[in-house]
Amino acid sequence: MATQAAFLAGLSQLAAQPGRDRAVAPARVAVAAVGVGSAKVGVRVGVKAGTAEAKAVAQRRGVRCRASLIEPDGGRLVDLVAPEEGGRRAALRREAAELPHRLRLSRVDKEWVHVLSEGWASPLQGFMREHEFLQALHFNAIRGADGRMVNMSVPIVLSLGDAQRRAIQADGATRVALVDQRDRPIAVLSDIEIYKHNKEERIARTWGTTAPGLPYVEEAITNAGDWLIGGDLEVIEPIKYNDGLDQYRLSPAQLREEFARRNADAVFAFQLRNPVHNGHALLMTDTRKRLLEMGYKNPVLLLHPLGGFTKADDVPLSWRMKQHEKVLEEGVLNPESTVVAIFPSPMHYAGPTEVQWHAKARINAGANFYIVGRDPAGMSHPTEKRDLYDADHGKKVLSMAPGLERLNILPFKVAAYDTKQKKMDFFDPSRKDDFLFISGTKMRTLAKNRENPPDGFMCPGGWKVLVEYYDSLVPSEGSSKLREPVAA
Amino acid sequence: MATQAAFLAGLSQLAAQPGRDRAVAPARVAVAAVGVGSAKVGVRVGVKAGTAEAKAVAQRRGVRCRASLIEPDGGRLVDLVAPEEGGRRAALRREAAELPHRLRLSRVDKEWVHVLSEGWASPLQGFMREHEFLQALHFNAIRGADGRMVNMSVPIVLSLGDAQRRAIQADGATRVALVDQRDRPIAVLSDIEIYKHNKEERIARTWGTTAPGLPYVEEAITNAGDWLIGGDLEVIEPIKYNDGLDQYRLSPAQLREEFARRNADAVFAFQLRNPVHNGHALLMTDTRKRLLEMGYKNPVLLLHPLGGFTKADDVPLSWRMKQHEKVLEEGVLNPESTVVAIFPSPMHYAGPTEVQWHAKARINAGANFYIVGRDPAGMSHPTEKRDLYDADHGKKVLSMAPGLERLNILPFKVAAYDTKQKKMDFFDPSRKDDFLFISGTKMRTLAKNRENPPDGFMCPGGWKVLVEYYDSLVPSEGSSKLREPVAA
Repeated sequence: MATQAAFLAGLSQLAAQPGRDRAVAPARVAVAAVGVGSAKVGVRVGVKAGTAEAKAVAQRRGVRCRASLIEPDGGRLVDLVAPEEGGRRAALRREAAELPHRLRLSRVDKEWVHVLSEGWASPLQGFMREHEFLQALHFNAIRGADGRMVNMSVPIVLSLGDAQRRAIQADGATRVALVDQRDRPIAVLSDIEIYKHNKEERIARTWGTTAPGLPYVEEAITNAGDWLIGGDLEVIEPIKYNDGLDQYRLSPAQLREEFARRNADAVFAFQLRNPVHNGHALLMTDTRKRLLEMGYKNPVLLLHPLGGFTKADDVPLSWRMKQHEKVLEEGVLNPESTVVAIFPSPMHYAGPTEVQWHAKARINAGANFYIVGRDPAGMSHPTEKRDLYDADHGKKVLSMAPGLERLNILPFKVAAYDTKQKKMDFFDPSRKDDFLFISGTKMRTLAKNRENPPDGFMCPGGWKVLVEYYDSLVPSEGSSKLREPVAA
Repeated sequence: MATQAAFLAGLSQLAAQPGRDRAVAPARVAVAAVGVGSAKVGVRVGVKAGTAEAKAVAQRRGVRCRASLIEPDGGRLVDLVAPEEGGRRAALRREAAELPHRLRLSRVDKEWVHVLSEGWASPLQGFMREHEFLQALHFNAIRGADGRMVNMSVPIVLSLGDAQRRAIQADGATRVALVDQRDRPIAVLSDIEIYKHNKEERIARTWGTTAPGLPYVEEAITNAGDWLIGGDLEVIEPIKYNDGLDQYRLSPAQLREEFARRNADAVFAFQLRNPVHNGHALLMTDTRKRLLEMGYKNPVLLLHPLGGFTKADDVPLSWRMKQHEKVLEEGVLNPESTVVAIFPSPMHYAGPTEVQWHAKARINAGANFYIVGRDPAGMSHPTEKRDLYDADHGKKVLSMAPGLERLNILPFKVAAYDTKQKKMDFFDPSRKDDFLFISGTKMRTLAKNRENPPDGFMCPGGWKVLVEYYDSLVPSEGSSKLREPVAA
């Protein structure tokens, strides 16, 4: 990618491993605060909120954060990568190679290992045990070690099949190795807990439907094992993809360092999985203006495209990154007040449930403002002719979600193409006939047909990238790249 | 019912309307605390937690409760029945008769009016508006006027069809009358809000499945309107059924009066929708013993059969009440430390979601201990050969539920028939072959065949009631009483 250097000009060199502060053997203490009542009278077992023990637990594992930014969930940013110093990586790699039980990670599993390892899901210390899974499903929030609710709306779980479950339980194993598709050790999961994977219930409670054709379900649930395995995760080394985009994959700790370096006094996050058009840009520029008017001195935008699994008719990450580069190169967004980075999570398309995850993860990366649009993380109903979610539910649910009280929600103002001014502008209902709404489907159709959108819809360089992308598809139409037909 | 007088001997005469303390025009102040962010920066609008305004709101509407019992959710027990004094009932009845828009209540709707009117769902002031509905669906909890989360796991909503929705909105009406099946006015719903009834999403998030055959769904959702209407409820007079059981339908305020009269220092609730066998009785007796050992002086049992809608193969309420009477008459439970009353809610069969509602409602009735069994509110999966819910999830979810922190959960010890001792006893795994598990299906089959269960399984009078019930079905087999075949 020739223009990456220029694109990254606004980003400082980031230390690969910012100052750590962690204990060696966290075991499962941090998740013990909410246990399940046993036969004895009284319910909540484990660490009691507010006690010295709880405070010690909260401090054991993770990165100390600068006080000027919003505090991560649970007080400390979780960091599950073995430290380079002290030989821990080599020891963990040896152990992983020798452990009798090895679970092979799918593409999506590995993305979750990445997400967990860098603390996007703080205070989670690994794949969910059952008490965390149930809280995520029923409450979209988990009670942390300090007794407070942290938001956690999507299950972050690892599945396994029955044969492997039986083998692990027959051995009484407490640690298993996680390996990639080529059997290379990635991590060790310890103090494991195995429980049933009720797929139907998980799907119904996460998506609000069980209709066939949900992209994440087909990719990661339908053919997954009937059991889930939770535990504390320790990752051998930082997850890399070697796809030319790793430099954009800044961890929450690295983002916090960058925001601090820039003396940001407000960080506003914009989650996206589509090309940036001038309506988005207007919104982001306008948001900065509003924050300045509110008295902030240096609001910084985190332009944060999602980098994990997306459905087949979304524009792939590499093309989106090329397009975002052009947007900055051509001055549509100001590199001085913009940080572009990749959010490593897979996409659920779970609407109001998922938007909470998108927001929560950005708190951990230091954002205290979150821009939310119409129908966030939404899609068409897979079997009915309608949107799966009410377009307003995402922002409503987000504004009421437990554990997100500290985050300021910025509802998206609707932008459309103003045919009089020949530019994208905020929709003005008093002269509604002047405005043209250009849907994602319309945009894709234009780009596929090598047609141009109206002047001022998107910067020319960005549009050219889109046209190139659709051109690149023609020879491989019907190949594995396009598992679903692109909507006309 | 000939023996009701004896059965009620342990209950004092209750004042029909215990001391009230309410304002005249509560409007929607109590639900304004969690609004949805508008386009301006900042999210949570409305009454701020902890402010004097919030405190005033919390005190405006409801019954003052004795300090010795657990505080109701929201601080005050909601009471939505128009007071007898001051002519309010007559005025409301006149208004309801004259309002241009009238919604006809189904059987289940009317049960919810009953539930809401007596404050079982405190702090809800009426059928849910959208922000409450969304919080119930996504979080199983609602942020109250004081900023605290109260548990609320099932939507309490009223539906209407599209034609009626259009007529109401065309008129700009803000108040509608609620009438019964014979068009008699029951209540007025004011400051109304109409929003979409996404049935699929409601069902998926409440039940964790969308499989056809869920009893509540078939009774109350499938054929319901495509819109929901929320608002503040004012009920003309206390809801009565005139079925000979109204004397058992004690409101939360009446139950609190009774517990206070008995000087209860602990109240433990037992929710049930089945006949009481000696295993249940053992559990209840044992719980009282354990509470005494913990230092409580006078723990009182609230034996609280569910009285609203149940599925066709459950034993009907009137027969269950006859059976419960026998259990007290024959000394299986001690009337001195037992209050038997009817819980007016309809049954969802929604497992871990519903058990939270069952527990939360009992807090409002003064219970600070809640007994939870295996697979509470569970049933067989409607289309697969398995239980719909994991048998342990109910108690796990209950122990972690937001808003139920003040309630002590008492997990059910497993009782079974000890063939050596010839009585029900707690299961002892060290001599497991001595124990016989008698399922509900087995019990029903025995009763239907006029066979006797093993000695000591149930008191003889109680068993006789069951046999009589199944006898009574024979002539009407296939009639409307049995909408579903009784499982063999």
